[in-house]
Amino acid sequence: MTDLLLRDGRPWMPGQPLDTADLLLRDGRIAQIGANLEAAGVETLDLDGALVLPGFVDTHCHLDKTLWSGPWVPNTGGRSLAGRIANGENRRAELGIPRADYSAALLATMIAGGTAHVRSHIDIDPSVGLAGVEAVRTAAERHRGRVDVELVAFPQGGLVRRPGTAELLDEALSGGVEVVGGIDPAGFDGDPTGQLDIIFGLAERHGAKIDIHLHDGGSLGAWEFELIIERTKATGLGGRVTISHAYAMGALPADEQRRIADRLAEAGVAMVTCAVGDAPVVPLRVMHAAGATLALGNDGIRDLWTPYGDGDMLRRIGTVAFRDRLLADEEIELALTAGTLGGARVLGLTDHGIGVGGRADLVTVDAATPAAAVVGVPTRKLVLKGGRVVARDGQLAD
Amino acid sequence: MTDLLLRDGRPWMPGQPLDTADLLLRDGRIAQIGANLEAAGVETLDLDGALVLPGFVDTHCHLDKTLWSGPWVPNTGGRSLAGRIANGENRRAELGIPRADYSAALLATMIAGGTAHVRSHIDIDPSVGLAGVEAVRTAAERHRGRVDVELVAFPQGGLVRRPGTAELLDEALSGGVEVVGGIDPAGFDGDPTGQLDIIFGLAERHGAKIDIHLHDGGSLGAWEFELIIERTKATGLGGRVTISHAYAMGALPADEQRRIADRLAEAGVAMVTCAVGDAPVVPLRVMHAAGATLALGNDGIRDLWTPYGDGDMLRRIGTVAFRDRLLADEEIELALTAGTLGGARVLGLTDHGIGVGGRADLVTVDAATPAAAVVGVPTRKLVLKGGRVVARDGQLAD
Repeated sequence: MTDLLLRDGRPWMPGQPLDTADLLLRDGRIAQIGANLEAAGVETLDLDGALVLPGFVDTHCHLDKTLWSGPWVPNTGGRSLAGRIANGENRRAELGIPRADYSAALLATMIAGGTAHVRSHIDIDPSVGLAGVEAVRTAAERHRGRVDVELVAFPQGGLVRRPGTAELLDEALSGGVEVVGGIDPAGFDGDPTGQLDIIFGLAERHGAKIDIHLHDGGSLGAWEFELIIERTKATGLGGRVTISHAYAMGALPADEQRRIADRLAEAGVAMVTCAVGDAPVVPLRVMHAAGATLALGNDGIRDLWTPYGDGDMLRRIGTVAFRDRLLADEEIELALTAGTLGGARVLGLTDHGIGVGGRADLVTVDAATPAAAVVGVPTRKLVLKGGRVVARDGQLAD
Repeated sequence: MTDLLLRDGRPWMPGQPLDTADLLLRDGRIAQIGANLEAAGVETLDLDGALVLPGFVDTHCHLDKTLWSGPWVPNTGGRSLAGRIANGENRRAELGIPRADYSAALLATMIAGGTAHVRSHIDIDPSVGLAGVEAVRTAAERHRGRVDVELVAFPQGGLVRRPGTAELLDEALSGGVEVVGGIDPAGFDGDPTGQLDIIFGLAERHGAKIDIHLHDGGSLGAWEFELIIERTKATGLGGRVTISHAYAMGALPADEQRRIADRLAEAGVAMVTCAVGDAPVVPLRVMHAAGATLALGNDGIRDLWTPYGDGDMLRRIGTVAFRDRLLADEEIELALTAGTLGGARVLGLTDHGIGVGGRADLVTVDAATPAAAVVGVPTRKLVLKGGRVVARDGQLAD
């Protein structure tokens, strides 16, 4: 592994002044941060005052579903959750997805945009089996060293209502998939206790993490938050459980949001928001005030569910900030924190972020401040993964 | 004026097939559209199958307020409407706005993105006077021939509650400003009848159009819609009155939305939506079904009100489509229609859009379909204004 000296950057370390400094990268990690560092024989890159950010963490996407780099496919999903699920399954064969080439093309775009870590849900059901796992693993392998990909065995078509799916999740987890997924245990699957029994059972048996899609709104969604929080406490899985989307959270009254955020923080249950369309965004200021973990993701990108999305995590961070009406710089930085350090917490990474000893997963941009970077979405000048330059000026480096 | 033959484009003419055709531009207008056109001695540009769209129409922005191209200014506006208005006025002097250089820089970005027409609200109050009108006129003059700018004399600080403002609006309209503005006649100005008396009176006296900011929500906002509709019918100003933002519309129950849309269509009152932050979007499908006019705009761009915005009208069209959850291609095209032809209707342009005799204000992009262009926000290959190339590959041409 090559060492590297980054000269004259402005590293973003939340809570510290944005001073110009050099960063010495050794063996894939940040060895030193300071003024006028000396490192004989080490290759030097001049950052010219660029802002240095931690690599972005996309904690919620669907690499197996994407049509990225393929022909334009007009959306035929309709508007109901059940209809969209059926459409997604019915057109897979025709469009040849999951397809490693599409997933790899999307990963390339993500890497060029500065994403260092990805958690991807992978549809698993008796019709597609584990083909999505294989396709995305193939794609991730092509980008080994440029991005780390964690998989979620995701029962998109239901778990209790879809016989044979639980066994496939079990098989996926046995084969190394790191996270077990779930989907609307009440509103879609119809048996909240039943679904959570299966998910938490699988997680305990395999030492897996948990990440549950929860679109259910209003008091139903809020009740399911409590159910998941209680299960997490009962099983001791705090720090390893995530509720994705959590639409109910964004639409609840402020005092109820605060109460739930406190409960999430206490139980070690995280939330992930993607600011999809007009769906409610998990309130960043409330989560921050409670000390609860919040992370961000792109969700579906150019697939049978949605024609939207570009895989650019910095733009998504900006969209979340815009949708949550974060205005002051320190508010906007909450979105950047969620899209970097918050994501790292969800993934269980202890060495992400800019500091001595941290992994040298870094992004440099020309921007006056971190908030200006979120708002302006400038081209990523350099993307480093494990201390190696993997992209320059928005293009893969090799 | 130079004539031009555009070879092998795919012009978007809603309702017609997206066939490859040539476009012959003469004297700033589209003279012919068809296959294998001949035009001896006319310069030819090969579009290589690029999609050809009408120039974008930004019907709601604030060119006088922008800090575009200036240093980053952290937002200090807070969250209340009154507080943001006060902050906007109080920091003008310190930041040297309105400033023609900033407005011109933003116009340059808009032009490069394919915007052909802009309607800009201009703050007018006893403290700033008509300085904003002068600054934006200076900026527009620098870009004469590249973009058309229409001004709104906008009483941002109130009209009834702010003595001296009505007289300044009168002066602005006498000096050629085309539109008289208003702001929350009830919720902010406190005297809906009083404000509308002034606005409609000025419009009738000067032959001006009307464009009223309406942030008031719920039943108050809906009641104001009715008030404006009734005034419009009583004064015969149908086709010349616009309600901007109209947040109440997006949040009303569907049957009430349909009823109001029918009333708007009947009275000739348009709405403009900007999809700002998490504010409700005027529902595009409902407005379309009723035959009511809907247009789009960027609203504030990098100013004391908001740190967000980039002036790119195609991206804004995409944001509106995303926020309104437009999924099928024909739904997404509604947003493109609003951002081009809808805007033209609001501005009273009768010759905008792609057809023989239309003004040759055109944008070309590489995209499979109009929906794909809205979703993907590709670089604008060519921007033509009055038949002349004014930008290429996202940069001004001269």
